[in-house]
Amino acid sequence: MIVYINGKYLEEDNANVNANDRGYLLADGAYEGFRIYNGKIFKLKEHKNRFQRSLDELKISYTIENEIQEIYENLFAKNNYTNKDELFFYMQITRGVAPRDHAFPKQEMTVGVYAFLSQKKINLDAYNNGVKVCTVPDNRWARCDIKCISLIANCLAKQTALDKGFADGLFVHDGVITEGTATNVCFIKDGVLYTHGATNRILSGVTRNFVLDLCRENDIKVIEFPMTVDKLSSIDEAFLTGTTGEITPIIQIDDISIGNGEVGVVTKELQGKYREYLDTHFY
Amino acid sequence: MIVYINGKYLEEDNANVNANDRGYLLADGAYEGFRIYNGKIFKLKEHKNRFQRSLDELKISYTIENEIQEIYENLFAKNNYTNKDELFFYMQITRGVAPRDHAFPKQEMTVGVYAFLSQKKINLDAYNNGVKVCTVPDNRWARCDIKCISLIANCLAKQTALDKGFADGLFVHDGVITEGTATNVCFIKDGVLYTHGATNRILSGVTRNFVLDLCRENDIKVIEFPMTVDKLSSIDEAFLTGTTGEITPIIQIDDISIGNGEVGVVTKELQGKYREYLDTHFY
Repeated sequence: MIVYINGKYLEEDNANVNANDRGYLLADGAYEGFRIYNGKIFKLKEHKNRFQRSLDELKISYTIENEIQEIYENLFAKNNYTNKDELFFYMQITRGVAPRDHAFPKQEMTVGVYAFLSQKKINLDAYNNGVKVCTVPDNRWARCDIKCISLIANCLAKQTALDKGFADGLFVHDGVITEGTATNVCFIKDGVLYTHGATNRILSGVTRNFVLDLCRENDIKVIEFPMTVDKLSSIDEAFLTGTTGEITPIIQIDDISIGNGEVGVVTKELQGKYREYLDTHFY
Repeated sequence: MIVYINGKYLEEDNANVNANDRGYLLADGAYEGFRIYNGKIFKLKEHKNRFQRSLDELKISYTIENEIQEIYENLFAKNNYTNKDELFFYMQITRGVAPRDHAFPKQEMTVGVYAFLSQKKINLDAYNNGVKVCTVPDNRWARCDIKCISLIANCLAKQTALDKGFADGLFVHDGVITEGTATNVCFIKDGVLYTHGATNRILSGVTRNFVLDLCRENDIKVIEFPMTVDKLSSIDEAFLTGTTGEITPIIQIDDISIGNGEVGVVTKELQGKYREYLDTHFY
């Protein structure tokens, strides 16, 4: 696979960064992951705005122009992808290379940019039949609203869930379910959708926000308020939202069966509306 | 400067890692920083044990043997250092190179190892006259006991302190002072030393633990219990402990003058005992 690294397009085995890149030493960078439908980036503007916000919050002085689209197109061509490929586009920007120090470098910095475009198929079994997830302690930092490459807590939580036989973990902070390890989570009770507010405790997901829009357009009431763990046994439906998985039904959380262990009606309706949107705008 | 990178000794400008190293993508690695006195590593065993513990907690399957000492000696020789140089030795170990995924790679991994040995002089003005520090929100993750390269919260806090004209920040979590951005912190009140317990909220510093040993050997009572912000105006002395700075007196926290703004008696006594130990064991 040809990837993009600091101005060059190279085979990924040859894509190197200096060991003093602050991304490598200090997790000092931001990233975005984009879903491609029929050769086009889904919600580019929303991802770009969030990417810029993450950089601003990290005080990385860099203004994103058109490079997301340009690098994407170049990687698409160089890897001989076709519009039929299910693709995931990843891009990260770090503060750049400098002698290791917690403080920001005083000199003008050239940011580090890495991007790749890889095949990533949606998990149709999960999409159609739902997944079982478990709760995990939310050990992350207090700025989950920044899409920062500082992801060790997410990695550990994801692996903990997999090791226990679950598809993913739901983070629990102070008794409240915040989000998944790389997704947001929504709950349905009596036809109303509940999801955590877009505070510092979650990443305000592009897919999450799109799904909330779908709800509003289809008269499904949305309440942005946290779901507590003790209420899980009383909910009707639950699902994850994410760039790759779109809307992934949840049929079990820990040992609690959700909605009799079957994909819920509202979840299916939203999956349908999601697909209608894609059919209209991308195909 | 010649550095060590994955088995090779190279000029640092040529020290590259693959962009898919999980250290670069996910902050998936641990590190240690070592102080060198007269050509010898200070508290090697303690650092090595903590390094191994960090790797174990991150579930990175790797056993540290003698490579810390070996790489150190090679870097010392290749960079033509002498015993008179004040040196700082840094080493980090990441989970290695794999396609980006939060979950751990299923295949056997070769860890990524980066190390450098650089000149780093102690700040004598800070050591002798003390520093002014400010409190900063402790936004870090809940596993500060792991010395992980996921350091963006520390970087942001350090820079915030510098931007406000202070030498460093003291993290405050739930009203409690946990530690500095790259140091531990101790307080003296009525001749008793107070410092945060070695919980998940702080890194159990090698220098911190050495200073606590010095206290016990010199009949200074130690109480490992958090200092709350509201009690700061009543303390007599305060200091930071760290690998490079050893014991750095604090003379002001936010707008609160500590001990009339002068370096405290117990602080000076501990600095003296520290130096006595070094003179006995390293010179």
